[in-house]
Amino acid sequence: MADNDAGFEARLAEAARLVVERLERCLSEGEPLMAGVPARLRAAMRHGVLNGGKRLRPFLVMETARLCGAPEAAALDAAAALECIHSYSLVHDDLPAMDDDDLRRGQPTVHVAFDEATAILAGDALLTLAFGLVAASHDAEPQARLHLVHALSREAGAAGMVGGQLLDLEAEDETSLPEAAIARMQAMKTGALIAFACEAGPLLAGAPAEKRERFRRFGETIGLAFQLADDLLDETADAATLGKAAGKDRARGKKTLPALHGHDWTRARLDALVAEAGELLAPEGADAATLVAAARFIAERTR
Amino acid sequence: MADNDAGFEARLAEAARLVVERLERCLSEGEPLMAGVPARLRAAMRHGVLNGGKRLRPFLVMETARLCGAPEAAALDAAAALECIHSYSLVHDDLPAMDDDDLRRGQPTVHVAFDEATAILAGDALLTLAFGLVAASHDAEPQARLHLVHALSREAGAAGMVGGQLLDLEAEDETSLPEAAIARMQAMKTGALIAFACEAGPLLAGAPAEKRERFRRFGETIGLAFQLADDLLDETADAATLGKAAGKDRARGKKTLPALHGHDWTRARLDALVAEAGELLAPEGADAATLVAAARFIAERTR
Repeated sequence: MADNDAGFEARLAEAARLVVERLERCLSEGEPLMAGVPARLRAAMRHGVLNGGKRLRPFLVMETARLCGAPEAAALDAAAALECIHSYSLVHDDLPAMDDDDLRRGQPTVHVAFDEATAILAGDALLTLAFGLVAASHDAEPQARLHLVHALSREAGAAGMVGGQLLDLEAEDETSLPEAAIARMQAMKTGALIAFACEAGPLLAGAPAEKRERFRRFGETIGLAFQLADDLLDETADAATLGKAAGKDRARGKKTLPALHGHDWTRARLDALVAEAGELLAPEGADAATLVAAARFIAERTR
Repeated sequence: MADNDAGFEARLAEAARLVVERLERCLSEGEPLMAGVPARLRAAMRHGVLNGGKRLRPFLVMETARLCGAPEAAALDAAAALECIHSYSLVHDDLPAMDDDDLRRGQPTVHVAFDEATAILAGDALLTLAFGLVAASHDAEPQARLHLVHALSREAGAAGMVGGQLLDLEAEDETSLPEAAIARMQAMKTGALIAFACEAGPLLAGAPAEKRERFRRFGETIGLAFQLADDLLDETADAATLGKAAGKDRARGKKTLPALHGHDWTRARLDALVAEAGELLAPEGADAATLVAAARFIAERTR
């Protein structure tokens, strides 16, 4: 167990190092999609994406790709694209008209460090860049690239992440929200991109539909755990630990399951989700130990 | 001449009809990428894109595709995707933090009809949808679809439209701007998507590089004419004719070539651009008459 966890931490760190290196290249003037970009826009894009995140989603892409035998360069492109999309969504979510956050991972948010218009445009540019990176990922088969573009559009778009963000904002005005509505909102807002990350590996490897579906369900399961753990942290941690304002969700009237059911229920549910995630990867045998450790890490993280 | 113009107007109307029909389908619950989208988000996306625009960019995609022998269904998907991107850019440009416009084609802008957060998200969702539509366009060859996704990412992104918008905002703070800087900004902000529209046809048809390059330069040329005519209109027309506030560019300190050089210079430059556009399509013979008429229409339009 401890060995697996140590292995997971090393692989997470290595994936983070690789994807940051790839993102540095994506956002350099040498990248064909970035030639001639105004300096201020490129700086704002870099501020939004090169900010010391854990790079969990890129790790999931890289690790599912490794497990399925997909080309590493193609996985890295997909991981970088996904991180561009995750980062753009944070840049836009932080805007005054949205969650109005000044601080993200201990740093000023993009609209604070630059201005609102630049933050809107930097977000738009990161989102647009992501699709170009996947399309130009020459180590992946053309059909796999097209599947990735389509899946990314679905999971990041109106039926996925963007739709979930809208439901989240709408929920602030509700006095109470049915549990099913909270679950739907969170599955879209957080779960969709994590599910995509876990489906990306089998997709790039051209794995059979059963395997893709199983990896996707693994992603959905750990996505649920991720959100539960995040909401629990917001209730219990302090700003110094989180690198962002704490207790803000509750103050803002955000509806979360830990707020509804309490700490013990949440911990039990997290344990059940980790067990479920492990079962979904059982057919992969010992090779899947790192991903199972990742599920545990997600459920147990304290920051 | 008059016959060509009549032919052009009929084709523009037909392309507009077809693309609106396709967009209606894209934004219906039946579209796989839109299943489960929150009602308010779908309504805001529809408000942003189904607003009675001229659909000039879709027409250029359809007409260059026809001229090059590309499949019509694939051209229609690309046209709809491009219109989603054009529309998202208007939704974001109209935001209070950007150009702060309340009126667009005589209707309230999306953030006025809904709210700012919804307008940001509807723009994000339209941009994201566009790439999914191209990726799923089954009548086009996989390689052609990938080329389209990549070109769309480049022209709509940081090195194209989004970058041009940032330069435009930066220019408001300058007391004067070199002519080359105005030209660069406009080539990115307006020219890039029009160039993409004209390149889409040969791209979808798998035409040789020479033809693609020539069609692209045709697009760049009419893109210049489009922006000049637009700036001239802003100086001379009234709000009732434009369906939006007039004279606003000058009031806002926007730098334009008509403001710099005057009416006669602008008209002469427009004539020269129309002639240049015609020469670029001369190898296509009589078949290109509709596109040449389109160039003239763009230069001479009065609203």
